[in-house]
Amino acid sequence: MNKKVAVILAGCGVYDGSEIYESVITLLRLDQRGAQVQCFAPNIPQLHVIDHYTGDEMAESRNVLVEAARLARGKIKDIREGRPEEFDALIIPGGFGAAKNLCDFAVSGANCTVQPDVLAFAQAFAQAGKPVGLICISPVMAAKIYGPGVLCTIGHDPETAQAVTGMGAQHEECEVSDIVVDVSRKLVTTPAYMLAQSISETATGINKLVDRVLDLA
Amino acid sequence: MNKKVAVILAGCGVYDGSEIYESVITLLRLDQRGAQVQCFAPNIPQLHVIDHYTGDEMAESRNVLVEAARLARGKIKDIREGRPEEFDALIIPGGFGAAKNLCDFAVSGANCTVQPDVLAFAQAFAQAGKPVGLICISPVMAAKIYGPGVLCTIGHDPETAQAVTGMGAQHEECEVSDIVVDVSRKLVTTPAYMLAQSISETATGINKLVDRVLDLA
Repeated sequence: MNKKVAVILAGCGVYDGSEIYESVITLLRLDQRGAQVQCFAPNIPQLHVIDHYTGDEMAESRNVLVEAARLARGKIKDIREGRPEEFDALIIPGGFGAAKNLCDFAVSGANCTVQPDVLAFAQAFAQAGKPVGLICISPVMAAKIYGPGVLCTIGHDPETAQAVTGMGAQHEECEVSDIVVDVSRKLVTTPAYMLAQSISETATGINKLVDRVLDLA
Repeated sequence: MNKKVAVILAGCGVYDGSEIYESVITLLRLDQRGAQVQCFAPNIPQLHVIDHYTGDEMAESRNVLVEAARLARGKIKDIREGRPEEFDALIIPGGFGAAKNLCDFAVSGANCTVQPDVLAFAQAFAQAGKPVGLICISPVMAAKIYGPGVLCTIGHDPETAQAVTGMGAQHEECEVSDIVVDVSRKLVTTPAYMLAQSISETATGINKLVDRVLDLA
């Protein structure tokens, strides 16, 4: 396999960045399948910094790209330097950072907007008919990337599902071990930690998502 | 399986904390094998903070326990609260944090000392004959935990191997996909990112280490 996959990260840590387990399982599966991976992140401040030990907000500022670099062992690029035409597929893991830094869903719900660099990058894949994988909470960006009618899942949380349909997407309930595929748009989604009770549970759905994205690429 | 495994983390990020991929692969394999896991970290300041995007030191301070909590999704305890008698085995992933925060090998080399809370916790497993897994650079602590003669590997870097033997351990060269076992002491070591060129390579040795640690428990 020589497929090239872009991965967009949102920081490093479930409560203010990319969910670490989801991100690492994605990167591990991509590597095990022989894909070439390049990580990207927006070069912007995080919405905030959460102390993951206490759960409290910390009085400091961190940069999304700098913190996401931890998840990429330094091998990451500013998403503004990304050239979608060089890649065959795109995957965005979840974590609150996807809803706080890549878009503002955590603050604005169905009225959210996607960070402009992230939106332009993701829309280039959609418009080129290249497969995209959105994990966990990331599918809240699906309607913004693809427009009305796109099919996706965030598991079966009623409030989040309602917000997703409120933005114009179709929502399909899905178990943690499974995926939902919008075949015509080549969009693959899986609930991961929207539902997962353990790291091995979240791996089942993500491995399936990565495999399907690669098959579609 | 109902085996209980303690995992000691050293922060979150290869250059100043626990190596993220090694830590997550360890936690994933433990969960896939049905082990019950509790993460611990020392409640101390990091030696320093590294910008993982530029590689430069940052002018700020972070706490090892607070940052390690990112790797544990918040489910982590101060190692001073840890009771070794409640666990069947111990695993310590690598990353520079193991050599900067859990001990001072990165600064002092063969003259290093292990952080007192970490040393006491690890020695309790050694003295009780419970298996311990040390990954990547963590085996530099082996001689301090077990005393002279303990068998381990850090891969085949000559300088690090010399430091390990200088502290009284026996060093055995080892490939990334393999493990070295000190059978009488139940110590299992694997090189991981001392040698790994990719995340899937590092997974091969770590999965083998986790399996052997659980078999010995």
